Amino acid sequence: MAAICGRDRAGTVRAANTLGWERAVTDWKAIMADPAIDIVDICTPNDSHAEMAIAAARAGKAILCEKPLARNVAEARRMVDAVKRARVANMVCHNYRRVPAIALARQMIDGGEIGDRIYHFRARYAQDWIADENFPLVWRLQSKIAGSGALGDIGAHSIDLARFLVGEIAGISAVSETFVKRRLTKNRQFARVDVDDAVSVIGKFRNGAMLNLEATRFARGRKNQLAFEINGSRGSLAFDLEEMNRLRFYDASDPEQMRGFRDIIVTESNHPYVGNWWPPGHLIGYEHSFVHTVADFVKAVIARKNDRARFRRRIKDAARPRRHPTRPTFVLAVIEVN
Amino acid sequence: MAAICGRDRAGTVRAANTLGWERAVTDWKAIMADPAIDIVDICTPNDSHAEMAIAAARAGKAILCEKPLARNVAEARRMVDAVKRARVANMVCHNYRRVPAIALARQMIDGGEIGDRIYHFRARYAQDWIADENFPLVWRLQSKIAGSGALGDIGAHSIDLARFLVGEIAGISAVSETFVKRRLTKNRQFARVDVDDAVSVIGKFRNGAMLNLEATRFARGRKNQLAFEINGSRGSLAFDLEEMNRLRFYDASDPEQMRGFRDIIVTESNHPYVGNWWPPGHLIGYEHSFVHTVADFVKAVIARKNDRARFRRRIKDAARPRRHPTRPTFVLAVIEVN
Amino acid sequence: MAAICGRDRAGTVRAANTLGWERAVTDWKAIMADPAIDIVDICTPNDSHAEMAIAAARAGKAILCEKPLARNVAEARRMVDAVKRARVANMVCHNYRRVPAIALARQMIDGGEIGDRIYHFRARYAQDWIADENFPLVWRLQSKIAGSGALGDIGAHSIDLARFLVGEIAGISAVSETFVKRRLTKNRQFARVDVDDAVSVIGKFRNGAMLNLEATRFARGRKNQLAFEINGSRGSLAFDLEEMNRLRFYDASDPEQMRGFRDIIVTESNHPYVGNWWPPGHLIGYEHSFVHTVADFVKAVIARKNDRARFRRRIKDAARPRRHPTRPTFVLAVIEVN
Amino acid sequence: MAAICGRDRAGTVRAANTLGWERAVTDWKAIMADPAIDIVDICTPNDSHAEMAIAAARAGKAILCEKPLARNVAEARRMVDAVKRARVANMVCHNYRRVPAIALARQMIDGGEIGDRIYHFRARYAQDWIADENFPLVWRLQSKIAGSGALGDIGAHSIDLARFLVGEIAGISAVSETFVKRRLTKNRQFARVDVDDAVSVIGKFRNGAMLNLEATRFARGRKNQLAFEINGSRGSLAFDLEEMNRLRFYDASDPEQMRGFRDIIVTESNHPYVGNWWPPGHLIGYEHSFVHTVADFVKAVIARKNDRARFRRRIKDAARPRRHPTRPTFVLAVIEVN
Repeated sequence: MAAICGRDRAGTVRAANTLGWERAVTDWKAIMADPAIDIVDICTPNDSHAEMAIAAARAGKAILCEKPLARNVAEARRMVDAVKRARVANMVCHNYRRVPAIALARQMIDGGEIGDRIYHFRARYAQDWIADENFPLVWRLQSKIAGSGALGDIGAHSIDLARFLVGEIAGISAVSETFVKRRLTKNRQFARVDVDDAVSVIGKFRNGAMLNLEATRFARGRKNQLAFEINGSRGSLAFDLEEMNRLRFYDASDPEQMRGFRDIIVTESNHPYVGNWWPPGHLIGYEHSFVHTVADFVKAVIARKNDRARFRRRIKDAARPRRHPTRPTFVLAVIEVN
Repeated sequence: MAAICGRDRAGTVRAANTLGWERAVTDWKAIMADPAIDIVDICTPNDSHAEMAIAAARAGKAILCEKPLARNVAEARRMVDAVKRARVANMVCHNYRRVPAIALARQMIDGGEIGDRIYHFRARYAQDWIADENFPLVWRLQSKIAGSGALGDIGAHSIDLARFLVGEIAGISAVSETFVKRRLTKNRQFARVDVDDAVSVIGKFRNGAMLNLEATRFARGRKNQLAFEINGSRGSLAFDLEEMNRLRFYDASDPEQMRGFRDIIVTESNHPYVGNWWPPGHLIGYEHSFVHTVADFVKAVIARKNDRARFRRRIKDAARPRRHPTRPTFVLAVIEVN
Repeated sequence: MAAICGRDRAGTVRAANTLGWERAVTDWKAIMADPAIDIVDICTPNDSHAEMAIAAARAGKAILCEKPLARNVAEARRMVDAVKRARVANMVCHNYRRVPAIALARQMIDGGEIGDRIYHFRARYAQDWIADENFPLVWRLQSKIAGSGALGDIGAHSIDLARFLVGEIAGISAVSETFVKRRLTKNRQFARVDVDDAVSVIGKFRNGAMLNLEATRFARGRKNQLAFEINGSRGSLAFDLEEMNRLRFYDASDPEQMRGFRDIIVTESNHPYVGNWWPPGHLIGYEHSFVHTVADFVKAVIARKNDRARFRRRIKDAARPRRHPTRPTFVLAVIEVN
Repeated sequence: MAAICGRDRAGTVRAANTLGWERAVTDWKAIMADPAIDIVDICTPNDSHAEMAIAAARAGKAILCEKPLARNVAEARRMVDAVKRARVANMVCHNYRRVPAIALARQMIDGGEIGDRIYHFRARYAQDWIADENFPLVWRLQSKIAGSGALGDIGAHSIDLARFLVGEIAGISAVSETFVKRRLTKNRQFARVDVDDAVSVIGKFRNGAMLNLEATRFARGRKNQLAFEINGSRGSLAFDLEEMNRLRFYDASDPEQMRGFRDIIVTESNHPYVGNWWPPGHLIGYEHSFVHTVADFVKAVIARKNDRARFRRRIKDAARPRRHPTRPTFVLAVIEVN
């Protein structure tokens, strides 16, 4: 773990010491210029993703970028073009794909457990941290920085899971609302909230399934409820991030009198990712989804390097491999949030 | 309970004996012509609601009509006009309004328990009884008789609850789908399914709240899940008809460390309608919602009659009241379903 | 339904009218002396069960008696002797055996669904209606009338289910407590509570399973929680009367990654007793358990009579059958409770 | 983190590298002899706890010891005597006390939230990892090493929580069972299981509350269910380790119509220990309970040292404090389990 970069020197140094980074820097461009760094992890507010990612791509670095990828489609397109052109490994940090219960859902769908047709995907990402109208105007509520509100901040996860679990979306209709239109800034003045507080989306997938998504930060009592349900021709799956170690599964091929949603505690050693952790019934938490994500990404980057190294060795017998061909190094760009 | 009417004589006679009706008839027009009958309860398939209700209104009878009220707006308008003109008591049988937990939800909203603003109403009515593609083409899947599919059959309840609990809807966008497009008829031939298997609706209420409704009969494992959640500025309410004796309530004004959705078992004697039933924790079932509905309607009809009787007595001193001014009598039109 | 009997004339007459009994009487011995009455249902406080049941047995009547059967073992023995001697049909009203989910549990155990060995039966019957120390000294808190407290009033159900679902008990150890030792009588004076407020029982069944029972009326928030769990060598079953339409089932023979407690909504037409009621997902309530119990008992009495009638006809060719050999009639002895 | 000790050299070296320990050793007595080591964490099988802990106490080291503390009371007494004589900081690793939801339960009880009297404490620790009779005879099933079975391995946690949350136990009655009496050893031979597979305990606390504990490893489907419920005069608390981020709370002083068990998601920054972790609704897992436990213990050891240092400085003006008076160092004795 080579270097952590932040805007605030003192905070960055503190973070480097606590978390065990070798260096603390404040100029992110120095990171990009450092040839010893292989992987960059971009965790900044949304308005800097594009510039940083494009610079990283040009510098040939593997890129892990926080969601939402960009503030708008134009930015995202430029980023995608850049990584394609540079042929660098890249990943948007949709960490929930790697929650064991969700990874299991994907395995089960692929294995035909809920049938060969999917009829419904519905998801709701609900929080309540800005339901209080006295909550201040943080950067996540400013369009210039965040791009969008609930849609990009949390809805992005639901959209990703829709695509991960069901497939590409064919068309949508949506409605959004900003319930509290003015909030206090740090200067104790009111300013306009110009992002969505909530959004509802309906539509269809290319495979014919129906889509229903909701994202809101105005659902009192829902703290981090990313809940989805998928109904297939033979069964259903349901999940709620507030009970992230569980997956509900209804199997319509169970004996008729004994059918019911199974409450699978996804903590068995043969469940995805779980073998690295605790005994059955011993839960994992939020951060483990990041551990899985980073581990998968780093492994992919290493595999890619080794592939290239092998390829080079094969065609150029005299070629000497790099000294540390598989040593992954990270740069974590932490910028003080809020 | 004066008379029960059905198309099949044997079945109707059997029903009259089992249920205790005085007469069994097969000609519904005879019911309308009988001046001794005060109240008509129309439980037929949707294509006869309009004709029967309009006839009943013209005959001066109080009308309780099954949902959906009609196959389309034009029919419904004619029915509403008829009862308005006839000034008869009338009610659509939205029995779920009178589930104690839902009646309590309404009381709590009116009492300000979830705050003075409502942000979200989302409901899902999900069943799975036609998810099997070998299920036959019953009348509920034929547009000519049913008018619509999931929308009218079960979605009607959600729409009613949206209006009952939150208010009038300002505008919507919707998408529907027929997943299984051909089914076997009684004659063992395939015929087209021309109603919706599922529908998703998003929109806004006049009071600014957002609306998200889904109705489907293709959700494997959901047997009769009419679930809704309402998020207000101070709290939230959640309900699921599959656990119909419970109401979830989150109160954001609880002490900060001790907030959480309360699982209210709505079986206390001071809960709506419950005083007529069992001790705390002893559940009631589906049919009790009809008992509450019919009781409320009959009481309203009686009160109305008494009001008129009192009114007549007041202005015409010599007038003799009817011998049984408050004796309610029913006609239940049972027509063999499916 | 021939006659209802109560101590208070006005209340008994009112009950007869409301519920549709032919006669209202206040002398229960008149019931026993009436040869037209075939079945007696004893719903009085516990101190009269023995006298009434023994009289009924001597009068040759079929007997349905409320639980707990008696105030003590001596009384119960005399009752059992009396019905054995008289050879009359008899049943203790353990109505929960006939809750569909519990009847299903029994079917599944008999069918080997949880394996050939049972390891654990644990049940808790918890209520809170006397947790308030200002609650008065009703008859259920007086040993002379009730015999015991939580043990007999609600624990009796758990013990019955233990025997119904697992088998005979081999031995126990128990502890009980009276938390509130003095309460106000109707005369506004304090008197001693001489029954148990709560009891805990551990022990073993003859088949080697372990037993753990708890009965309490001091569990704030538990309104009518008769919850049990049974662990067998191949699976487990769990039930809670506060969600009486559900049965949880864990099948250890499910595929390893997809195991979890199934939440069976016991409302399918092929579930026990359910075929007489509503469509899937439409719940039934507390009183349905009594309907099932009475129906089963009446059917058994009728079958028995018919058997005897057939027997008599067979051996005595000239014998004329009774005019209404199968007409069941009830006497419900309602005595104002509390 | 100075040294990790294990019996198997290769495994210990690997663990030291992975986990970041400075040294890997195989002779635990070397640890005790090393004056640079301040704290010893004993994680070995139960039969070595006493010898190691007593040696550590004699060496003046702070001791964190895994549960169960000892194989029997005699061993435990000798250990307690040793630490008392040596006046060293010591702690049994009852890590569940430091699960935020349980720590919150304690705070709420102390704050009178469930009233001034506690009526019931009931706990069940249920697992199923040896329910399969083909599971082999591991050390946890051998009395010589483990001392007891379910009782000490998992029941110890329930007993600790009973004392932590309610108080000292006055008396008990218990029953235990070994369901599978012979199992295969590593040598593929059958040997006797001489510990309990399950135990049930009833009794009373000194404060009058009733106790009901169950520990079993034969509950199919229960993976790590440490569930408890506490009923007080004003409310109740309920917890289940399989949903470890939640605490259920019933407040009998809520308005009558709106009472119900609250489902508190214990992830708010003002909940115990949570401020160090994630935003609301973002869960923590099993290992966090150890982090809290070790952190609290290390802080206590440091505070104690500082107290003594301050004390010494006060009375001996010339005394020079140690160079690193607060540097905590650990020895983790990992011995290959199973």
